Amino acid sequence: MVVNVGVIGTGMIGTYHIERLAGQLAGARVAAVFDVAVERARHIADSVGATAHADAHDVINDDGVDAVVVASPGDTHAEYALACIKAGKPLMSEKPLATTVEDCLTVLEAEAGHGRRLVQVGFMRRYDAGYGQVKAAIDDGSIGVPLMAHCVHRNATVPEQFTSDMLQTDSVIHEIDTARWLLGDELVAATVLTPRSTPNAAAHLIDPQLTVMETAGGAIVEVEMFVNAQYGYDVRCEVVGSEGTVELATPSAVSLTSAGRRSRPIPADWKQRFGAAFQAEFEQWVAGIDKGRVAGPSAWDGYAATAVAVACVEALQTGRRVPVSLVERPALYA
Amino acid sequence: MVVNVGVIGTGMIGTYHIERLAGQLAGARVAAVFDVAVERARHIADSVGATAHADAHDVINDDGVDAVVVASPGDTHAEYALACIKAGKPLMSEKPLATTVEDCLTVLEAEAGHGRRLVQVGFMRRYDAGYGQVKAAIDDGSIGVPLMAHCVHRNATVPEQFTSDMLQTDSVIHEIDTARWLLGDELVAATVLTPRSTPNAAAHLIDPQLTVMETAGGAIVEVEMFVNAQYGYDVRCEVVGSEGTVELATPSAVSLTSAGRRSRPIPADWKQRFGAAFQAEFEQWVAGIDKGRVAGPSAWDGYAATAVAVACVEALQTGRRVPVSLVERPALYA
Amino acid sequence: MVVNVGVIGTGMIGTYHIERLAGQLAGARVAAVFDVAVERARHIADSVGATAHADAHDVINDDGVDAVVVASPGDTHAEYALACIKAGKPLMSEKPLATTVEDCLTVLEAEAGHGRRLVQVGFMRRYDAGYGQVKAAIDDGSIGVPLMAHCVHRNATVPEQFTSDMLQTDSVIHEIDTARWLLGDELVAATVLTPRSTPNAAAHLIDPQLTVMETAGGAIVEVEMFVNAQYGYDVRCEVVGSEGTVELATPSAVSLTSAGRRSRPIPADWKQRFGAAFQAEFEQWVAGIDKGRVAGPSAWDGYAATAVAVACVEALQTGRRVPVSLVERPALYA
Amino acid sequence: MVVNVGVIGTGMIGTYHIERLAGQLAGARVAAVFDVAVERARHIADSVGATAHADAHDVINDDGVDAVVVASPGDTHAEYALACIKAGKPLMSEKPLATTVEDCLTVLEAEAGHGRRLVQVGFMRRYDAGYGQVKAAIDDGSIGVPLMAHCVHRNATVPEQFTSDMLQTDSVIHEIDTARWLLGDELVAATVLTPRSTPNAAAHLIDPQLTVMETAGGAIVEVEMFVNAQYGYDVRCEVVGSEGTVELATPSAVSLTSAGRRSRPIPADWKQRFGAAFQAEFEQWVAGIDKGRVAGPSAWDGYAATAVAVACVEALQTGRRVPVSLVERPALYA
Repeated sequence: MVVNVGVIGTGMIGTYHIERLAGQLAGARVAAVFDVAVERARHIADSVGATAHADAHDVINDDGVDAVVVASPGDTHAEYALACIKAGKPLMSEKPLATTVEDCLTVLEAEAGHGRRLVQVGFMRRYDAGYGQVKAAIDDGSIGVPLMAHCVHRNATVPEQFTSDMLQTDSVIHEIDTARWLLGDELVAATVLTPRSTPNAAAHLIDPQLTVMETAGGAIVEVEMFVNAQYGYDVRCEVVGSEGTVELATPSAVSLTSAGRRSRPIPADWKQRFGAAFQAEFEQWVAGIDKGRVAGPSAWDGYAATAVAVACVEALQTGRRVPVSLVERPALYA
Repeated sequence: MVVNVGVIGTGMIGTYHIERLAGQLAGARVAAVFDVAVERARHIADSVGATAHADAHDVINDDGVDAVVVASPGDTHAEYALACIKAGKPLMSEKPLATTVEDCLTVLEAEAGHGRRLVQVGFMRRYDAGYGQVKAAIDDGSIGVPLMAHCVHRNATVPEQFTSDMLQTDSVIHEIDTARWLLGDELVAATVLTPRSTPNAAAHLIDPQLTVMETAGGAIVEVEMFVNAQYGYDVRCEVVGSEGTVELATPSAVSLTSAGRRSRPIPADWKQRFGAAFQAEFEQWVAGIDKGRVAGPSAWDGYAATAVAVACVEALQTGRRVPVSLVERPALYA
Repeated sequence: MVVNVGVIGTGMIGTYHIERLAGQLAGARVAAVFDVAVERARHIADSVGATAHADAHDVINDDGVDAVVVASPGDTHAEYALACIKAGKPLMSEKPLATTVEDCLTVLEAEAGHGRRLVQVGFMRRYDAGYGQVKAAIDDGSIGVPLMAHCVHRNATVPEQFTSDMLQTDSVIHEIDTARWLLGDELVAATVLTPRSTPNAAAHLIDPQLTVMETAGGAIVEVEMFVNAQYGYDVRCEVVGSEGTVELATPSAVSLTSAGRRSRPIPADWKQRFGAAFQAEFEQWVAGIDKGRVAGPSAWDGYAATAVAVACVEALQTGRRVPVSLVERPALYA
Repeated sequence: MVVNVGVIGTGMIGTYHIERLAGQLAGARVAAVFDVAVERARHIADSVGATAHADAHDVINDDGVDAVVVASPGDTHAEYALACIKAGKPLMSEKPLATTVEDCLTVLEAEAGHGRRLVQVGFMRRYDAGYGQVKAAIDDGSIGVPLMAHCVHRNATVPEQFTSDMLQTDSVIHEIDTARWLLGDELVAATVLTPRSTPNAAAHLIDPQLTVMETAGGAIVEVEMFVNAQYGYDVRCEVVGSEGTVELATPSAVSLTSAGRRSRPIPADWKQRFGAAFQAEFEQWVAGIDKGRVAGPSAWDGYAATAVAVACVEALQTGRRVPVSLVERPALYA
């Protein structure tokens, strides 16, 4: 009845998940933890009554662990996903599934070989109420045939070490998954346009970037990615169809009128904006594990997202339109 | 083809009308002007090529004047209205038609005796696009049977000499006319509630006031009147019906997102908020005169509004519910 | 670490709470259940692994029960509250604390005699993000001195057996608690105005009702209560202060543009609108119990709300302004 | 004091201007009219007391004509502009100034040779309150350094004869002028992307189109142009700056709540959306002529807009990024 979760990685996002698993989710507990920062891992493990292991694979292979959350650096994700599949344990991998297309394919093949789904990729936006209603409006025909999507993703600021490529691999990748899911269509090409950068960005950073992607069916998805927007965390999405459009609303609970203006607060960060989505994501993941079912974003979704993100990086670096070509979709992901 | 207008009163609102008549209205010109402030009147008359008269009645009786705008202090309105009727000249009287019920009735009888409409009262909100759409939604059945109206009328500040009674006679009177017009129903009783006053009001002032009025048909109209609201000029109106509600929207043309907030500007004053309504009011008045037709808010509307406003003042002063009883409506206003 | 909860009452709201306690709350489980509908209680108990008791007091006195949720009919609340206090067990009582002022006082005295808080009343709006931000804006001075509150509470429909009094005791009571909490002030008088009723209401029902309440400090709170509004579940609240106003925003996650209109969905019912508030309410209640602390709306809040609601019913029935007078506040609730 | 205007072209837009000049503008009258549709021209001329001429040049050279409005087909604009300049008469030319870059340059040179401005191009959006406030927010630094603009221009439908090129030359051209004006920067390159077309478009039509333009200063302006959007006439513009963004608000005067939705009306067509802008444009034009001053969008603006629109058409036809290169700006337009 209670799912015992092992968590690999105790950085910002790993800690965020641990707190949720330990304190805000009925039916789950944190059983084991690993981080290369050994002391931090032990400290967190103690605070939630979990075991701190000396090796990530010990978490995966711990008999007291039913399922694994992978929240370590992206370039380790594939290794742990493969180990989880080998151990037959469900895992929630933070995005990306892997940082290279090749690694994604290795995971995909391993899971296909295993014969049933174990991998879920942490594209939590699919669990956001707003995105859910956007998808519902598309699926029920309210906007007719979708033709375009206008997406905006703005962060107030990013740390100094955030690179120009990371705008694509860390941030646009969310829009990639969202677009594929909303439109029910694969992305087949990407172009990245670069307006002048904001003076608030680090000197090495190209920010904002405007990514334009094409779907197999001919729709166009464009994404303004702007990580030093200063004013707050703002995610917008409008899908334009032949009969109408549907868009995310400003997610504010109040309106203040003073000094000549009526104003609504903008979320400060992704936790404020997507906290409820993370909660729903983990609730459904835990409930599914309890029933032996993994139903969220799949390894195929993770592979496709990485393939497109890699193309976006190439498009950014070369200034050219870069096509994306996917392998045939294994039956497991039909 | 050009309507020659005489204007009585060159205070703030009179000057506002003169500028419009002289410069923003095809088919009208200002022919004559009067004000007790003789120099000001002469100066304004010169600037628009009009004659400055030494007496208001000279404006009315000037052969070169086709129609009259009365924008002098409220307690002179009845006298000038009667003179216009006697002279057979159409007039636009700023609200109120008269400050007492008796004077209103005298004007009403004079016009009824004259046999056709000459008087229009300056309830310009009826010409506002928003109020027009509220009325359309009521009239086309979009909200079902109207049951209640929630009205808000806020000014940033008022001059020191503004009195507690004037909240009713100068400001709520607009809501009175609007409610009667929107609901197609007379107001038959009024109660005024007085929350604690804002520290920003003059010591003598009861501000805000909450006026609750009842219609003959049993609907309730409530008005928050707040004349030291500081933040701007804000007029709201929601009519609640058995199937839905319709309300004025914030009349902002842009939205600014910065510093953690998405905000829309609030009008600073009544000119910003109702400038287009005044323009439409005068366009239609001038066009009607040219065709010998007066169709806007009538002397009956002016009488009913004053009758209710007088009841509101009594309700404010006594703390009691005060009924309003109107004379039979003359056939001219059927 | 896990709080074992006993639930009395398995009607709509009781079942709603059981599902949450059993499936959506880490740190809680449902240990025991009672309902006069014995079969229904047994069925629900079985589904969550709880014991079905033959008497409500057996739930309260069950050694395996750490805390009690009272969701039975309102006129039984006081009896169970007293029993819980006697047993020294924390309870979450659905509103009202009791249906009469006398019963509320008995509970209040019992708890004061016990010496520390055990009772929490289920005024879940205090846990809503929107109301929380309204309160924050008042408390941090953003709107200056609060002078008035305009509240609206609309339901799509109510069952046939819903009575005119129940608009006050079942629905306005939420606004009463919210107003007291937001303004930090007691309500000392109530008047109820009754516009014509909607044709969509049952013949016996006075709907809508407009309740006007006064606080000890002189603020006015008015509530439009409309339980057959047809179009959806719509709760609004604007607090007007000397420097600005703060109001709940339409809680929609998307906007759809089609057929000449841009529109946002309105919640269908209270579960949609306040689901997250119920979740937060129970999370904090459970977490508090684990730490031996009850911090939510108190028996005093429950008493004050009932006292005002009773006055509202009298005001409705008599058409008069009815003053409310509260006993001195026991030190426990300071 | 009254400006006598000659109007060339009595199609939809010409008639629209004639009605305004004859009936809604103080200080202007229609003195002369020409159209190749001789009967229609005579009929309209009669209705406003103007002379119908047999040749457009007779309108221009009519001694009773002070200023000319050119509303004939686009490929005649240059000829009439040159004739007006030769006659020393101010003209308001509907967009485009000319359909080819060469013709624009000829007009530019003629006017520069004349030595003072006579030509105004009918880019009426500059007179819209919303665009004005967007520009004000940019100019006063509210959004920091502008980096991108997201523009949307949707029509409900277009006539059968509307071609794919016309999306650029008839519609995007407005966005081109607006972007240049808002950003104070020239557009130097254009790319046009074409998502799958809406099934509601004529078979020959590429609709929607996504135009991406670059400014000399490195900002990016993108325009979704969609002329069969079905739901209404919707123009949006968001300018994204280093410190914030400013965008046009939905220009609705009311909000209707019914049947589970809160909705605001979308304008049906450009007259509804930009009627007030046209009024302001002509008011200022007429007022300026009376003072011997032409201050609106210039022949330079008309030339630059056509140059960019021509590049957009080439970009559409070739699928390539097309640079725009402008001649040196004559001192007259500094």
